Amino acid sequence: MTRPRNDTFLRALARQPTPYTPLWIMRQAGRYLPEYNQTRARAGSFLELCRNPDLATEVTLQPLARFALDAAIVFSDILTIPDAMGLGLYFVESEGPRFERPLREEWEIRNLIAPDPSEHLRYVLDAVAQVRKSLAGDVPLIGFSGSPFTLACYMIEGRSGSDFSSVKGMLYRRPELLHHILQVNTRAIVAYLNAQIEHGAQAIMLFDTWGGVLAQGAYERFSLRYMSAVVSGLHRSYDGHRVPSIVFTKGGGAWLEQIAACGCDAVGLDWTIDIGAARARVGTRVALQGNLDPAVLLGPPEVIRAETAAVLESYGAGAGHVFNLGHGVSQFTPPEHVQALIDAVHELSRPYHVS
Amino acid sequence: MTRPRNDTFLRALARQPTPYTPLWIMRQAGRYLPEYNQTRARAGSFLELCRNPDLATEVTLQPLARFALDAAIVFSDILTIPDAMGLGLYFVESEGPRFERPLREEWEIRNLIAPDPSEHLRYVLDAVAQVRKSLAGDVPLIGFSGSPFTLACYMIEGRSGSDFSSVKGMLYRRPELLHHILQVNTRAIVAYLNAQIEHGAQAIMLFDTWGGVLAQGAYERFSLRYMSAVVSGLHRSYDGHRVPSIVFTKGGGAWLEQIAACGCDAVGLDWTIDIGAARARVGTRVALQGNLDPAVLLGPPEVIRAETAAVLESYGAGAGHVFNLGHGVSQFTPPEHVQALIDAVHELSRPYHVS
Repeated sequence: MTRPRNDTFLRALARQPTPYTPLWIMRQAGRYLPEYNQTRARAGSFLELCRNPDLATEVTLQPLARFALDAAIVFSDILTIPDAMGLGLYFVESEGPRFERPLREEWEIRNLIAPDPSEHLRYVLDAVAQVRKSLAGDVPLIGFSGSPFTLACYMIEGRSGSDFSSVKGMLYRRPELLHHILQVNTRAIVAYLNAQIEHGAQAIMLFDTWGGVLAQGAYERFSLRYMSAVVSGLHRSYDGHRVPSIVFTKGGGAWLEQIAACGCDAVGLDWTIDIGAARARVGTRVALQGNLDPAVLLGPPEVIRAETAAVLESYGAGAGHVFNLGHGVSQFTPPEHVQALIDAVHELSRPYHVS
Repeated sequence: MTRPRNDTFLRALARQPTPYTPLWIMRQAGRYLPEYNQTRARAGSFLELCRNPDLATEVTLQPLARFALDAAIVFSDILTIPDAMGLGLYFVESEGPRFERPLREEWEIRNLIAPDPSEHLRYVLDAVAQVRKSLAGDVPLIGFSGSPFTLACYMIEGRSGSDFSSVKGMLYRRPELLHHILQVNTRAIVAYLNAQIEHGAQAIMLFDTWGGVLAQGAYERFSLRYMSAVVSGLHRSYDGHRVPSIVFTKGGGAWLEQIAACGCDAVGLDWTIDIGAARARVGTRVALQGNLDPAVLLGPPEVIRAETAAVLESYGAGAGHVFNLGHGVSQFTPPEHVQALIDAVHELSRPYHVS
């Protein structure tokens, strides 16, 4: 397989020179796009959209048809694994994901089995393969999963918690049970992501949406350690090409040095941290991805341009920056504001890449 | 007026020697206490409890009757001010506060008036006075308010948001409107907190629950700047005694140095940050308050003791530490676990205070 024609994203992750700062946008295939909403309506629901490889491919490609994005990310959900474990994923409109059968009893935890991706997560692998084929070598394709701890949060809470008292209560009451869940999740994620790589994913991202709710030591023991195990279990290269990994802990700004040492190629940053300060802290160990506040895209184009310029200036000159938002794009974002962002990143970043 | 007999809390805020590390607990009068639930049932609702000075006094004193806490905090809500502005505070069971009439139109924002606390917030001042009298000089009394930005979040969103797209959208679309709201809130908070001081509050805490959702520069312009204005508007001393102030931004770990320079006497820390690292960053400019993960109290007493010891050890020897949780105590906490915490803090901290 040859490299994608636009390999700026992969080069930036490898901290190699690029003519401009590449970007993609978390949740770039999403509700801010009218064409996405049309496809979703045809699918019937978010979950049916995820489970239909044809439609998942269609929405994956929609933002790339509109915008000069430098990477694609397969349309899926971070919670496909616990769903494949039998917990019964469903969505409540405007309230997010829930599980019908969250883990309540010790025997349920002891009986957890890492699903065989080629069987229970076939629909994701099919979507990955189909998207990769449809991209026809234009831009690289990102595969992803939730982190072991983030999956455990939903598996135990049954939903996005406000204080996570169930999962954190287990952490302090029965840490061995939580470790067991995290071990199973880690095995499941490694198998799942490696299968995505084998089906065409050219980079991997781990979304640790809830690691930031942990205390410092607990984050290292219950989230970062298992992400490190995932990263070291991934195919380092496939089909002759290195497969880089990105680890993103929302609210993890306090632990950047530790995250950067987990074996990943890049660290995702949320919008609360200054990316220049982050770069100074992690040095040249990893690339950085981020981190414009998604709310900036609710402002007018001139504000978007100024705030984008500030992020680029803060990162400064040289390789190793993948531009992104610090969190998923808001459903209330006008698509033309995304266009303004992309224009700003591609234009304003060029002076930082003159060698 | 004389100092309280137990002035360890005030001494720690002034970074003066104490025989042990004093502590109080955010939300110490709350649903984890059966006697609180009984009084609340008598009141009818949380809001009626807040608005009845006799009952508010009763629940304020309940945790002090049970536990050797080193400070009292008047039972109230962080959102009393926007309620007094006419926005109509109400509570949805297990979903938190909401406003009937959130700010939607520019004219509503331009018409905002800082309420006269002696008129519209009389019930809080009466509760402060009554609690102070009932404490009879045992321990100091803390008064509090939400921060200007945190009030604005609720005033604009109408509720606790998941992505705060309304308030942050205004920040990037119409910053001058948000600044106007923050200016009115600042005036209102200064008047309210000074009235609390005049009625008996001996220390002040600003709860910036949502400042942590802002990007770095935006935090400084839209939250910290106004908290700094509040602090500089407060009575520095009253009745012959200095009135110290504590500023707490949840999720504000990235900005500790800036917070410590805002004029406050102490910085509150959430549980995600290592308190020893925080102390190294702020030096001797301020005292620190925090920061045990509230979820630790769901664990068994030996875990509570070990995690408490870790926080005390991390802060290390010397004055300037007020022990607290990093956020409010969970309603699922067994009261005997709070007892274990208090015993652990008072016993295990003594070696750090031998001069």
